[in-house]
Amino acid sequence: MALKKPQKEIVVVLPDIRSALNVGSILRTADAAGITKVWLAGYTPAPMDKFGRVNKQINKTALGAEQAMPWEKAEDIQKLLRRLARAGFDLVAVEQATKAIDYKKFKPRTKTAFIFGNEAEGLPPKILRRCCQVIEIPMRGKKESLNVAVAAGIILFRTLNI
Amino acid sequence: MALKKPQKEIVVVLPDIRSALNVGSILRTADAAGITKVWLAGYTPAPMDKFGRVNKQINKTALGAEQAMPWEKAEDIQKLLRRLARAGFDLVAVEQATKAIDYKKFKPRTKTAFIFGNEAEGLPPKILRRCCQVIEIPMRGKKESLNVAVAAGIILFRTLNI
Repeated sequence: MALKKPQKEIVVVLPDIRSALNVGSILRTADAAGITKVWLAGYTPAPMDKFGRVNKQINKTALGAEQAMPWEKAEDIQKLLRRLARAGFDLVAVEQATKAIDYKKFKPRTKTAFIFGNEAEGLPPKILRRCCQVIEIPMRGKKESLNVAVAAGIILFRTLNI
Repeated sequence: MALKKPQKEIVVVLPDIRSALNVGSILRTADAAGITKVWLAGYTPAPMDKFGRVNKQINKTALGAEQAMPWEKAEDIQKLLRRLARAGFDLVAVEQATKAIDYKKFKPRTKTAFIFGNEAEGLPPKILRRCCQVIEIPMRGKKESLNVAVAAGIILFRTLNI
């Protein structure tokens, strides 16, 4: 079932994501959700490195979305966030935190950047401080965590009402 | 943010899932969503095989949920579906199909079994025929598909309103 592209300009920012499998899966999800662009910040691996070498794990999990989905590397996450804020994006961190609100209550405005953190450490305070909103997914289980690619799917499809 | 366990009895059925990484990720998601049980049907790999050998890939991606989350192997998927139907479960297939309805319109009743299919082939007709409902996630992108673990996260968290 194909739907028309959304009017909103939604981007995804991935600072210091360790696993190429997660990057590939998020590129695939972002494409399915009609996201405008995925920013691969810090040491997050890219589908192709600066020497033009293809990342096989991303290739395998993105299943072609690494070519359909616009992405860009940004070494300096702070510089990227300043740039996005200046361009009018609301910076929204996805993180379990005391000041976080339930993601179901969050409605993205026209330009929103969703920021997902590292698999083990999440997002550091210096990124959280820059965000106008922190949102979290409530948990019912014993382990209290989700894979970052699964969390990205839940957040994007729910907040964009896809 | 911990919530109380849901009143509903929701189970997940995974027939012939190929990737241990996907099984691990779905066990973690199912735990976070407060699912009652995950059925690993057909050739779907289990956290531990019948000789007691641990599956390292599941271990790595489930991050402990393979112990917190109740799971069971069922070699014969048809027998399992008959058994679940007799026990009063609504059998709900997640699959892109002509007769599928938008997952956002689906409200699970007290006992629901969500069935997710193989990464490449999806669910075969002989499983779809047994289901009272087929639901799908609409897509906005070019590649028109989601990883099965991501799809499971989107479906479970939305239909259970977590």
